[in-house]
Amino acid sequence: MLRVGYSTNIAPELLKDFPAEVELIALPRDLDHDVEIEVWLPDPYPTRNTNIYPRLRGLKLVLSLMAGTEWIPAAVGPRVTICNARGAHNISTAEWTVSATLAMLKHFPLFLDVQKSGEWKRRFEATQEYEKISGDERQHYPPVMLEELTGKRVLLVGYGSIGKEIERMLEPFRVELTRVARTARENPKVYSVSKLDELIPQAQVIVLILPSTAESRGLIGARQFALMEQGALLVNAARGPVVDTDALVAALNSGRIRAALDVTDPEPLPDGHPLWKCPNLLITPHVGGSSPEFARRALKVAELELRRYMAGEPLLNVVQAAV
Amino acid sequence: MLRVGYSTNIAPELLKDFPAEVELIALPRDLDHDVEIEVWLPDPYPTRNTNIYPRLRGLKLVLSLMAGTEWIPAAVGPRVTICNARGAHNISTAEWTVSATLAMLKHFPLFLDVQKSGEWKRRFEATQEYEKISGDERQHYPPVMLEELTGKRVLLVGYGSIGKEIERMLEPFRVELTRVARTARENPKVYSVSKLDELIPQAQVIVLILPSTAESRGLIGARQFALMEQGALLVNAARGPVVDTDALVAALNSGRIRAALDVTDPEPLPDGHPLWKCPNLLITPHVGGSSPEFARRALKVAELELRRYMAGEPLLNVVQAAV
Repeated sequence: MLRVGYSTNIAPELLKDFPAEVELIALPRDLDHDVEIEVWLPDPYPTRNTNIYPRLRGLKLVLSLMAGTEWIPAAVGPRVTICNARGAHNISTAEWTVSATLAMLKHFPLFLDVQKSGEWKRRFEATQEYEKISGDERQHYPPVMLEELTGKRVLLVGYGSIGKEIERMLEPFRVELTRVARTARENPKVYSVSKLDELIPQAQVIVLILPSTAESRGLIGARQFALMEQGALLVNAARGPVVDTDALVAALNSGRIRAALDVTDPEPLPDGHPLWKCPNLLITPHVGGSSPEFARRALKVAELELRRYMAGEPLLNVVQAAV
Repeated sequence: MLRVGYSTNIAPELLKDFPAEVELIALPRDLDHDVEIEVWLPDPYPTRNTNIYPRLRGLKLVLSLMAGTEWIPAAVGPRVTICNARGAHNISTAEWTVSATLAMLKHFPLFLDVQKSGEWKRRFEATQEYEKISGDERQHYPPVMLEELTGKRVLLVGYGSIGKEIERMLEPFRVELTRVARTARENPKVYSVSKLDELIPQAQVIVLILPSTAESRGLIGARQFALMEQGALLVNAARGPVVDTDALVAALNSGRIRAALDVTDPEPLPDGHPLWKCPNLLITPHVGGSSPEFARRALKVAELELRRYMAGEPLLNVVQAAV
């Protein structure tokens, strides 16, 4: 029997579609003895695996339930194949991206403040906020209180399965979309990330949805913020280290740009960190992939990958091939 | 020359495409003498017209820049034709509707509180909020912090030009859409508003985007709230009086439903009104139609209607035909 280890936190009924020829081994967070398993489904929370991976013997394949797997190579070493749950987070993360973008363009953080104060007349603060952040000096009557996503110039940095889902959800808004990924390609046109500095000045919304790697670390730093147009909105649905946090804090505090972040660096963002108090910012505490549908979807992806592994077929979602 | 009166608040350059055969008469908010005009473009803020309409002589046509015109018939009487700016608010109002719906499903009001407190660990309050409002008693791991719009059962009450635009913007979310309007029709299927009580129990999101009329007043009251499923989200992008405010406050405070409102009754919502403090609620202070593009779009609609009027062609956006 193929021995497959999984976190005790995963409800066993979610594994009911796994192949019958598999022996499922529940691994508690405080595992205190060595375990022989060939396939491992780690806990979705990386820190809940720290007592487990040093105890695994004979491990050949990791099936992560997450899209980002940046902690796993160092944990299991280079002789293990690592697959992610490609596709399982597409809907939730793309929805978060569109929701956070719209919330910022609609000035919802300000309106929630107005709601808390219970003073309807404070609505005109949205006009001041709009004029300040947009740099729009035209006379408007009635005064502008909300912006639109429709027609905006959007730079999508990352064009994997979640990036494509974001593009699909942006369709009704008829944005002018420019795509960037590690390697340039055609049909549709995707620019190489090496062109990023040329593309940033044209963007009104910049969406980050690329993997966290050595190359993507600090991709958005002081130089890139300086290239952004007044009022540009940076949306980070990727990983915190893709953005240089000090440069982000400076750019926000200068009033030049705005941001919506589901991820930060460091993460969790510590109490008292200056990012918490920056203006023109929405932070959600790394919840973008969360959904009532998440576990079911991710375990379905893992199950199908496991069946391919058992049948000796090529795996679909390899992020590290065993050496 | 055809005399057309407009609010002095409207920038004259926005009228530059109006026909040359028109004499444009700027009407100040504190107008203190009678004015002979045939066509009137009121100020978008109803209360800024109260000194103007009693002074108008020879008025035959009102070209409102807004979608809702409920205050105008009483102001100008039945012998005047009234047109609205049908289409000019489609994008902004439909965007507000989708934005507000997503903000509630993503628990952004809570996350903005968490952000203000600067305590990352408070993220798990979203799980408590989700469990309480959804009534979902299944075990979830990892815990649920966000919901999805994708696949939700949405009841769209009102199927005019803004309602159709909302439908278009909901397309990528593959919702199960049920349409309701004053009169039933086919292709696509639209139910009569008389079926509302039968349709409400099936809906997870109920969007109001119908005109404020004698029939639609109090359409959503205590009986309708009682019919809603646990955690249903009511989104009012129409007019405040369509919802019975006392019943809404009771339904929110009971924890049975949630709401996103751009409009209230009374409006402005007074300081100290109990609605301000209700849970599971987003209020924006009647800003849904606001956009940097608003005035340009609305005056284009008015200009085209004016040209039809001058050519003796049928008007397109009549909301009151002169008797």
